[in-house]
Amino acid sequence: MSTQVLEPADLTPGTLRVTPLGGLGEVGRNMTTYEIDGEILIIDCGVLFPEEHQPGVDLILPDMEPLRGRLDDVVGVVLTHGHEDHIGAVPYLLKQRPDIPIIGSALTLALTAAKLKEHRITPVAHVVKEGETWEAGPFELEFVAVNHSIPDALAVAVRTDAGLVLHTGDFKMDQLPLDGRITDLRAFARLGEEGVDLFLPDSTNADVPGFTPTERSIGPVLDQVISKTPGRVIVASFSSHVHRVQQVLDAAAANGRRVALLGRSMVRNMTIAADLGYLNVPDGVLIDYKKARDVPDHQIVYMSTGSQGEPMAVLSRMANLDHEIEPGEGDTVILASSLIPGNENAVYRVIDGLTKLGANVVHKANAKVHVSGHAAAGELIYCYNILKPRNVLPVHGEYRHLMANARLAQDTGIDAERTIIGSNGTVVDLKDGEARVVGQLDLGFVYVDGSSVGAITDADLKDRRTLGEEGFVSVIVVVDSQTGRIITGPEIHARGIAEEDRVFDKVKPKIVAALEEAAQKGVRDNHALSQTVRRTIGRWVNQSLRRRPMIVPLVIEA
Amino acid sequence: MSTQVLEPADLTPGTLRVTPLGGLGEVGRNMTTYEIDGEILIIDCGVLFPEEHQPGVDLILPDMEPLRGRLDDVVGVVLTHGHEDHIGAVPYLLKQRPDIPIIGSALTLALTAAKLKEHRITPVAHVVKEGETWEAGPFELEFVAVNHSIPDALAVAVRTDAGLVLHTGDFKMDQLPLDGRITDLRAFARLGEEGVDLFLPDSTNADVPGFTPTERSIGPVLDQVISKTPGRVIVASFSSHVHRVQQVLDAAAANGRRVALLGRSMVRNMTIAADLGYLNVPDGVLIDYKKARDVPDHQIVYMSTGSQGEPMAVLSRMANLDHEIEPGEGDTVILASSLIPGNENAVYRVIDGLTKLGANVVHKANAKVHVSGHAAAGELIYCYNILKPRNVLPVHGEYRHLMANARLAQDTGIDAERTIIGSNGTVVDLKDGEARVVGQLDLGFVYVDGSSVGAITDADLKDRRTLGEEGFVSVIVVVDSQTGRIITGPEIHARGIAEEDRVFDKVKPKIVAALEEAAQKGVRDNHALSQTVRRTIGRWVNQSLRRRPMIVPLVIEA
Repeated sequence: MSTQVLEPADLTPGTLRVTPLGGLGEVGRNMTTYEIDGEILIIDCGVLFPEEHQPGVDLILPDMEPLRGRLDDVVGVVLTHGHEDHIGAVPYLLKQRPDIPIIGSALTLALTAAKLKEHRITPVAHVVKEGETWEAGPFELEFVAVNHSIPDALAVAVRTDAGLVLHTGDFKMDQLPLDGRITDLRAFARLGEEGVDLFLPDSTNADVPGFTPTERSIGPVLDQVISKTPGRVIVASFSSHVHRVQQVLDAAAANGRRVALLGRSMVRNMTIAADLGYLNVPDGVLIDYKKARDVPDHQIVYMSTGSQGEPMAVLSRMANLDHEIEPGEGDTVILASSLIPGNENAVYRVIDGLTKLGANVVHKANAKVHVSGHAAAGELIYCYNILKPRNVLPVHGEYRHLMANARLAQDTGIDAERTIIGSNGTVVDLKDGEARVVGQLDLGFVYVDGSSVGAITDADLKDRRTLGEEGFVSVIVVVDSQTGRIITGPEIHARGIAEEDRVFDKVKPKIVAALEEAAQKGVRDNHALSQTVRRTIGRWVNQSLRRRPMIVPLVIEA
Repeated sequence: MSTQVLEPADLTPGTLRVTPLGGLGEVGRNMTTYEIDGEILIIDCGVLFPEEHQPGVDLILPDMEPLRGRLDDVVGVVLTHGHEDHIGAVPYLLKQRPDIPIIGSALTLALTAAKLKEHRITPVAHVVKEGETWEAGPFELEFVAVNHSIPDALAVAVRTDAGLVLHTGDFKMDQLPLDGRITDLRAFARLGEEGVDLFLPDSTNADVPGFTPTERSIGPVLDQVISKTPGRVIVASFSSHVHRVQQVLDAAAANGRRVALLGRSMVRNMTIAADLGYLNVPDGVLIDYKKARDVPDHQIVYMSTGSQGEPMAVLSRMANLDHEIEPGEGDTVILASSLIPGNENAVYRVIDGLTKLGANVVHKANAKVHVSGHAAAGELIYCYNILKPRNVLPVHGEYRHLMANARLAQDTGIDAERTIIGSNGTVVDLKDGEARVVGQLDLGFVYVDGSSVGAITDADLKDRRTLGEEGFVSVIVVVDSQTGRIITGPEIHARGIAEEDRVFDKVKPKIVAALEEAAQKGVRDNHALSQTVRRTIGRWVNQSLRRRPMIVPLVIEA
């Protein structure tokens, strides 16, 4: 793969153009556009969560620049399932054109609608089911059941004049799922026999050998842990993991305990899931949080958010004794969740805090209380063998995951030339059964921060990193606008660099001398004087304090 | 354990006082003081590496405040092995009194001396070996061989009038170590029969079930990976892991390859290890880096640093094509190391970068190329059973590790009351075979940052986090010192908050109005005027921009 930016070739009639805008080279903000004969279909529209080198950022959106001026050509957005990394950016797309139809399963659209409501948008929504078809302009869509860590996930087969494409969304192949709704390999087989021209598979776990264990294996572990706990049980998991919550409800019921849901998103999502029939609440098990206080310790389970150590979520607050529920001796806390890379220290801080309070903490590292939602290598190989696709474009994953997925394809006999390793903005044209890279768009990160969308630049983040690591020193000098002579100052203030302001008294004469020299040379330009100040103090700080804070010279004319 | 600060009781003659200053509730900066009859022995003096909530910090030292005014009473510092978390703070201690004797094995002291040389300190060093004894004031020391991920590690038995203490340092019980130097269970048995009054064991892996696999199991994996690589092999590991490097040298030699060492610390440590006979370099295998360029790709192995994704280390620079060696197709990179929590994203970025360049990347997650250096639960139980200590104070670990270790002790029959869960500053007195907590010192973090030691406070770090997440807005107003009226300004500058400076034009009239009102009320005090500015703009920024940057009001009198 060249990283050089190619101008995409013109799109000829009857050719399908596939362009991932997000989700390649990263885990998150999945979004792919499909275009043929002037009309555009979007599959998924998710967000990415920031890493430590993107401080202060709330969310990261796909760069939708390629859709600028083309929104009226969009015939619909297909949402494969209801996770944030697949639906989270929908509000930001619909803000630009609220009547773009959104298409997906009942649960997916209910979760999306709840999110859109917060942004005061009522979508044009089309609920579809596995086995059904839907026509959106030149795109004939067929939906295929897939199994994932949220119910009601769908793969999408996209038929156009250019051929047949299969886009899996996130999936795995649990053969004994709780709801009996397996990834539909019969449909995969039928599509394979028809001939899949391009396959876009989930790559998240492509580098994990073997098979993901069944979700069902967690139930007995939960049951055993709950049965052995003399006090309260607190379970934390992702707030959209309906089947995990289902197993907690079942284990609680089997142990004569009631369950109270904690955390705004947990309550909202499980209410939706129960209303739509995806969550089967055993009679009388759920109890309102406010009433849970009256239930004896050995008869209650709290189901909460915060499994990733998020500082404001319920579990972190419990660990910090900043929540009404204070876990202690006899209580058990179960983190029934994955540990997303980058969250380790935060999660371990929560585990330590809870352990210190006397609670028994059960987590992935000491018990089998989590299984992944993504197909491991063994499962992906099944897919390749049953589909025998002509071309493969692995999606959803870091570069190493995409590579691993491509290798699996090649292991099943697909030609290396027919497996495309792309990145966000890679433009792939499909025509006559052949997929080719015809261009590479230069896409960026769109940061959501406070009320701003796309205003934060990488330069701002670099400033933040400098400020965060080194602090800043500001130097204020008031000069006479006519003579350039100093009226007041320099005053020097520093924050985040741990030196008393008076440390800087030593450099003040140097700044005065530098400014006087500049004034004598006739320099009056504010920018030039600021640069003089910056150079003088910057050099001194680097040499004397061995630091590199941000230097903020402020030359004020009076 | 109470977290309340207790004043330690007076130390009566013949009582031994043990006070961990670092390493409890954290992995790093291990340091423990032993005091009896007015004299003090220190065991280990290490550093801790900062986490993401301690931005810009280079190192964290133990809080040595309890030693203030007592340095002349210190009879020696025993160093159990040569890792940074056990020797890294020695220079900061010896800067205060350079002639404190340091006592340890040949390799440990050689590595410490190299570190002290950088600080221009020549230590008073006493080299000891397993089986030997050493008298330091009232402390009779006996050294016991232990196996760890660096050669020549020693446990220390400390005999005083108060009884016998065994301090393991870091250790594991590899029964087939490369150098044949096993943890000396015969000595443990003998000490156990004599009667161990207090046992301080390594807790790092106490929550890991079973046994740590032998270091020897890695050799065949390295051999196989190297033999299958058509191009260059690059191996990254910790620069002090002599046995890991030994296995790389042996596998290289077996495959007809030469080895070039890369990275300052790797070259320095391996030179020391080879000179002292801990590293056996097969004839002609090592080659100078500069000459390695002339060796054909299939005949070279580079042994480098950077296994934790450190941005300035060799491996990260290779992944960013910022190093003379540019890995590519046919090359294999092996990360033969652990993945320290918090480093995941950095390490995965390096793995992705190398994969993108075409290299085959082998790491812990896809091959058995690392084993831990610490005893797992199964090994610790052996120790408890052979020693049968009267009292246990688990050290070296986060709270959950200390708890897990105490539980193992209790599993072998030690009374829960005789297992002490402490934190840094917990003061434990040993007398008549009984160890009791008699106090809790309030210890802090000592941050090394640039040239400063201990100057950075938690308030500074809070400032840095605010600056790093939210940036700052500074407002400069020049006022007449007599009338309080505004002469110039407000001028507003913002960094790291992604708004153009002109956004703030809207708030300027509000600031002017607030200051004029204050002036009319006769307010002249600079601090009060600054607070007026801070409140006015702070409220506006929070409401209008939904952000909480640091507000820096600068009211200048002229």
